[in-house]
Amino acid sequence: MSKIQSVKIVGAGLLGSSLGLALMRKGITCFLSDSSKANLRLAIEYGAGEEFSNQNPDLVVVCVPPDATAETISRELRNHPDAVVTDVASVKGAVLAELRELGAENLERYVGSHPMAGREKGGPASGRADLFFARPWVITSRSDNSQERVELVRELALAVGSLPIEMSTAEHDSAVALVSHLPQLVSSALAAELVSGSAADLSLAGQGLRDTTRIASSDPELWMQILSRNAKAIAPHLKSVAGRLAEIANTIEQIEQSGSLAKLHTTLAEGNSGVERIPGKHGGKYSNYATVTVIIDDSPGALASLLTFIGSIGVNIEDLKLEHSPGAQIGLAEVQVLPEAQERLASELTKNGWRLV
Amino acid sequence: MSKIQSVKIVGAGLLGSSLGLALMRKGITCFLSDSSKANLRLAIEYGAGEEFSNQNPDLVVVCVPPDATAETISRELRNHPDAVVTDVASVKGAVLAELRELGAENLERYVGSHPMAGREKGGPASGRADLFFARPWVITSRSDNSQERVELVRELALAVGSLPIEMSTAEHDSAVALVSHLPQLVSSALAAELVSGSAADLSLAGQGLRDTTRIASSDPELWMQILSRNAKAIAPHLKSVAGRLAEIANTIEQIEQSGSLAKLHTTLAEGNSGVERIPGKHGGKYSNYATVTVIIDDSPGALASLLTFIGSIGVNIEDLKLEHSPGAQIGLAEVQVLPEAQERLASELTKNGWRLV
Repeated sequence: MSKIQSVKIVGAGLLGSSLGLALMRKGITCFLSDSSKANLRLAIEYGAGEEFSNQNPDLVVVCVPPDATAETISRELRNHPDAVVTDVASVKGAVLAELRELGAENLERYVGSHPMAGREKGGPASGRADLFFARPWVITSRSDNSQERVELVRELALAVGSLPIEMSTAEHDSAVALVSHLPQLVSSALAAELVSGSAADLSLAGQGLRDTTRIASSDPELWMQILSRNAKAIAPHLKSVAGRLAEIANTIEQIEQSGSLAKLHTTLAEGNSGVERIPGKHGGKYSNYATVTVIIDDSPGALASLLTFIGSIGVNIEDLKLEHSPGAQIGLAEVQVLPEAQERLASELTKNGWRLV
Repeated sequence: MSKIQSVKIVGAGLLGSSLGLALMRKGITCFLSDSSKANLRLAIEYGAGEEFSNQNPDLVVVCVPPDATAETISRELRNHPDAVVTDVASVKGAVLAELRELGAENLERYVGSHPMAGREKGGPASGRADLFFARPWVITSRSDNSQERVELVRELALAVGSLPIEMSTAEHDSAVALVSHLPQLVSSALAAELVSGSAADLSLAGQGLRDTTRIASSDPELWMQILSRNAKAIAPHLKSVAGRLAEIANTIEQIEQSGSLAKLHTTLAEGNSGVERIPGKHGGKYSNYATVTVIIDDSPGALASLLTFIGSIGVNIEDLKLEHSPGAQIGLAEVQVLPEAQERLASELTKNGWRLV
């Protein structure tokens, strides 16, 4: 199996420069190109690679906005007749359709892919070497892609710490419609409603509002390009959520008269079920840990001595969250451990002078 | 100005027990009562107060579910003819209307209030002394409340570290409809849609989906009580969001034919504006810290030795986040420090054999 020697990254924005940073640390040479000279210089200064000038990379990764993706892939396939070309666009079916419309040749050397990683902020200055770490990287290989070419993209994903997942183009587009594009639009529509609120209304905002609207600060131009390319998969979900909200509005408006709360309850309870289906920390893993919350001084060494103590009694910390009260001299450490360790941890801590909440 | 000597807390759930924990630490005696003996015992064991038995508190705080709030306030006003009675229900107009329907007497001694604090989990075991810290505590005083009585509730809010805000009953209900009740329903409706997804779809879930759906795991029964009591204020917002989503669904369905992206862009851009209106951490505090991300073994003591090292070089950790790759033997510790400490921390860590991302 041939290992990747060098990669050309086309587009030095958030994803391109993050990819360069991650690959360079693995000793893989990166050649960068970008239509913006300023972006290119910035990415190079940050250490994401060197400027591309006629080298022959094994692999070309197209990291340009969705609007320009197909055209760029087509050009890179022509310019690098021996290279495998992949891309990182959030939609895969539309890119393939556009490539065919453009009459792109040698498509057997194009393997579509999509790392499930991003931030609200774009540009090379937001790039992070760990952006892809532990995130799924979907590879939408097709029957005309040789196994060797697909393997090269898998190696790319593994090199930056991602978890490669193979899916068909249609499966990918349908999945991201539900877990990425729908939440974006719902969050944007919710946040847009805040424009109607007064400053006094907004002064009561809590963590719930902050969390539900965080992604609404994403770049509209980028999302227009994504959403308009996956319309068929997104629209039914949007209609379903819109219908549900309209139905609830009607239900609660008539609550004093007709009094049926069943529909409202259904949505709230199905919301519970939906959250539980999300794998990972949220429902699954998280709720299987037990939490011991310890009060600590907000000083250098306080947290360390807590964790040293926990280590010394042989308890493994599965997760840890720090909570500060702004300006206060104490903080809370929420230590998550396996349930069977909770009681012993709590009692040992108390015995040794730690204050639990 | 008379300071609070003793408080009776009726209802020892999340809010009641958190209030007890916070007040007891301030040296204010708390008497607890709860219709559930188990809840009551648990809250007392956690240190939230002592059992109520015929004492004469200055202030009674009703912390029962919204369904039982008005009836309980009415009873406490009768039972404690010298006390000020307040409550923590998330809706204020409905409680007042129900009190009047019940023919409650001495309403001039009832001052409505609502601390903007909570968690997805309920019950006394979830109680935390810092639950109210730095959170707004809305006081919906009315013209029949004497200034002295309102002041007692302000003192309560200040005693637990909250920020008292005075608003009219209607202003409060309108504000929470927008910043709390609407996000709850939107998040629930979004999460409910996940029930239609396959496990493969859900495996691509990222932080965006997790954040937008976190509050959808809240207790349906409690929220039914809240939402049904603020229907008039919530319904117009719900309709507006539902209409927006339905409109976008129509727009993107027709995108290939008619091609108008303007509506989609409006929602995304207004979403940006909406988020910017939320005060607090969002841009503020968080982004003022610098992050150093360190790779650590997922073993007892690994994190402790990292933090011990950081403490030993005199750097204070402002915040800390752990990231685990499910099943992996390594994790990432995102250490947040003051920007001026970042460079030194990173170089000291590297020099001493720690691997940075």
